[in-house]
Amino acid sequence: MEGLLMRGRALPVLATCSCQLSGAVPRRFHHCAPGRAQRLVLSRVFQPQNLREDQVLSLEGKSGDLTCKSQQLMLQVGLIHPASPGCYHLLPYAVRAMEKLVRVIDQEMQAIGGQKVNMPSLSPAELWRATDRWDLMGKELLRLRDRHGKDYCLGPTHEEAITALVASQKKLSYKQLPLLLYQVTRKFRDEPRPRFGLLRGREFYMKDMYTFDSSPEAARQTYGLVCDAYCSLLDRLGLPFIKVQAHVGSVGGTMSHEFQLPVDVGEDRLAICPSCSFSANVETLDVSQTNCPACRGPLTETKGIEVGHTFYLGTKYSSVFNAQFTDVHCKPHLAEMGCYGLGVTRILAAAIEVLSTEDCVRWPCLLAPYQVCLIPPKKGSKEAAATGLTEQLYDHVTEVVPQLRGEMLLDDRAHLTIGNRLKDAKKFGYPYVVIAGKRALEDPAHFEVWHQNAGEVIFLTQEGVVELLTQVQTV
Amino acid sequence: MEGLLMRGRALPVLATCSCQLSGAVPRRFHHCAPGRAQRLVLSRVFQPQNLREDQVLSLEGKSGDLTCKSQQLMLQVGLIHPASPGCYHLLPYAVRAMEKLVRVIDQEMQAIGGQKVNMPSLSPAELWRATDRWDLMGKELLRLRDRHGKDYCLGPTHEEAITALVASQKKLSYKQLPLLLYQVTRKFRDEPRPRFGLLRGREFYMKDMYTFDSSPEAARQTYGLVCDAYCSLLDRLGLPFIKVQAHVGSVGGTMSHEFQLPVDVGEDRLAICPSCSFSANVETLDVSQTNCPACRGPLTETKGIEVGHTFYLGTKYSSVFNAQFTDVHCKPHLAEMGCYGLGVTRILAAAIEVLSTEDCVRWPCLLAPYQVCLIPPKKGSKEAAATGLTEQLYDHVTEVVPQLRGEMLLDDRAHLTIGNRLKDAKKFGYPYVVIAGKRALEDPAHFEVWHQNAGEVIFLTQEGVVELLTQVQTV
Repeated sequence: MEGLLMRGRALPVLATCSCQLSGAVPRRFHHCAPGRAQRLVLSRVFQPQNLREDQVLSLEGKSGDLTCKSQQLMLQVGLIHPASPGCYHLLPYAVRAMEKLVRVIDQEMQAIGGQKVNMPSLSPAELWRATDRWDLMGKELLRLRDRHGKDYCLGPTHEEAITALVASQKKLSYKQLPLLLYQVTRKFRDEPRPRFGLLRGREFYMKDMYTFDSSPEAARQTYGLVCDAYCSLLDRLGLPFIKVQAHVGSVGGTMSHEFQLPVDVGEDRLAICPSCSFSANVETLDVSQTNCPACRGPLTETKGIEVGHTFYLGTKYSSVFNAQFTDVHCKPHLAEMGCYGLGVTRILAAAIEVLSTEDCVRWPCLLAPYQVCLIPPKKGSKEAAATGLTEQLYDHVTEVVPQLRGEMLLDDRAHLTIGNRLKDAKKFGYPYVVIAGKRALEDPAHFEVWHQNAGEVIFLTQEGVVELLTQVQTV
Repeated sequence: MEGLLMRGRALPVLATCSCQLSGAVPRRFHHCAPGRAQRLVLSRVFQPQNLREDQVLSLEGKSGDLTCKSQQLMLQVGLIHPASPGCYHLLPYAVRAMEKLVRVIDQEMQAIGGQKVNMPSLSPAELWRATDRWDLMGKELLRLRDRHGKDYCLGPTHEEAITALVASQKKLSYKQLPLLLYQVTRKFRDEPRPRFGLLRGREFYMKDMYTFDSSPEAARQTYGLVCDAYCSLLDRLGLPFIKVQAHVGSVGGTMSHEFQLPVDVGEDRLAICPSCSFSANVETLDVSQTNCPACRGPLTETKGIEVGHTFYLGTKYSSVFNAQFTDVHCKPHLAEMGCYGLGVTRILAAAIEVLSTEDCVRWPCLLAPYQVCLIPPKKGSKEAAATGLTEQLYDHVTEVVPQLRGEMLLDDRAHLTIGNRLKDAKKFGYPYVVIAGKRALEDPAHFEVWHQNAGEVIFLTQEGVVELLTQVQTV
């Protein structure tokens, strides 16, 4: 044990790590990310894929519970593992995909001037009492009491907190508006019946943005800007969506839209007019309404998963907390607010629900946990001579295609046939699978390349593979 | 309102955003991060800096409460804002710094084979009852009950959860070990007296890693590996630290070390031997012990802030949850575990505590929210002719120094003197401040460059500035 102890002295002498033979120089920085030279190998990835359907059901409680494709696939290939009803462990592949999604969201939010903050989950009851939502939210709020007897809830959303924060800034000028503040954090909602895996959980990641403007007109402009950013985000992910008018619910305000992915397992019913631009959550329509209120044509119905929700709030919250700005004459006014949510973990699951086949996960290309899986020949097979070629290809691509560093996985389970490993690669949904099969023994060697999202298979030389992979977009 | 509605149809027609005139092409990807071309300007940053010391105290409750330098500075320059006792809003600069810290942590953890997971905060009581910690942790655990009457706590640490997760993997082979799983998530602890801002809060970010090995020897090797990674991390941040032997506390196990930053405000007392490698938290020593147990020399004492803590756990948790692996003969054995924590928000505050002056924040260079602040001349001043030069420099650096994209801030508050803006820049602690002052009118123009962490001021041409900034390390 003493061997592990460090030589340590009081300031200003710096402690050095006994194991770092080069010695620790103060403020020494590594010039590149450590570990870049290592090859990522599949056999070391913690991604248990040993679940049969009956195990999935028993993990999720009663066998009569509804499940959906994304939930089953995510459990089967080891993306998630249940922790308690409606709460999931995200395993390494899922974490990688989520971090990519958060980067795309950051890009889109920051492109419209969004600034990222981070608000606590513990939310004091007095904030919620001020807007009456302490009572209105009922059993959906998870509540607790601290050691001093003070009441808190676990924030399902943060209108109260952000408005109180902005209200505390005494010098907010009209010049600083619009102010667009957002965060990507865990949210909590005590769902009566959590289901469908990450689609309806009790603890989940959400991006919530809150905007502050100087007039209703400016606020509506900002509202449009955020909606455009949501469109751009879903476009970049390659997810078909519908934007529909929606109820404001307990959040309040005077205008609201939902961003819905049309899919049968969706829990929202959407009314759509095939002849004009009208589309709405049926909640917003009269029960008897079967014709489009805009063009009077007949409405069709589809189901959707809500992945985004926007609200124009007006001064509902700013008036309660007195969130003001000063105009050009230094006169105070209440800020006009909007709030905007994106279900982060829900988008992951919904994308898998929409894009996957019954047996195989498919990802939005940008979000795939790894972009490329390389499969070398089976040990002892005729093609085994080409094993070195695959490793050479791995090292070469990593060197000349910088955006694929950390994005290529070598399936080193060489005791398995290529066929078995390809089957796994199809299940996991890597956008590109590169195989050293029979034609790897040709001169020049040819690799078998599966572009899974396009459903294409082609044979390419090493140069061809590099050229193809150079085109891959990453985030 | 209808003008904002989208044209939407049922699948397979894709909805398009009315505002995107180019039309939404399925799976169209943006080829670069949006918004890259915009200049980041200081006047739009939400970083309220209007707090005087008396306001800080009133925000934090009783005026007799202890505060420390980092807490005061972080409140004054608008890095954090109190939400409730021991809970803080992280404002945009702090979020940027924390995200950088998380990237450095990810690099170090992944360099030693760490795989990132994400476990829920809601942690079922039965897990904690299984290890008796439901009772042992007492009032530090924040507890709550869901709508069905089931007990949960908000996880302060996740030994139980991760061990149960690994135990659920029926096919864990010795070939997959060591398994190093970690996460960076919010943790909760109901501190009796939260204080010192982010140094001792009730809700905070922590990196927690859990390791699984096939033998005590292998586990000790892994323990050394993680300790080395902690040393490397703190070295890269330029933070002087001491690694000391420590108590295992309620976590348990047979060996433990703390990584301490020596500083007067620290709450831990450390005993250090100036003549040999011995160092320990005094908690681990007898009250009467004033001599080094290794070399018998006299011990000196210093105070420290604990930023990291490592534990060798043995089979304490794996035996409770039956977390097993199979050896080469397919025989099952209990995994040997370790656990390793880093206080993420605490490192931010501790670094500011250690590096800053009384009035000015100083950051570990890698973590500074923005690397460079550019100050153009005052409007209407003699030097105002050089305003365009500063903007030109901004655009040029952004173009030719890719790692500084998004890292340069233009202080566009041109109604203020250069002196006043430089004062702010010193307070905020940008590593580099580039000023277009008197010598900007020379031919060729010279910029005044403050390298704040080194305490240097030099004059450089545009080419000189670019050459200097090309050297800046970012993460």
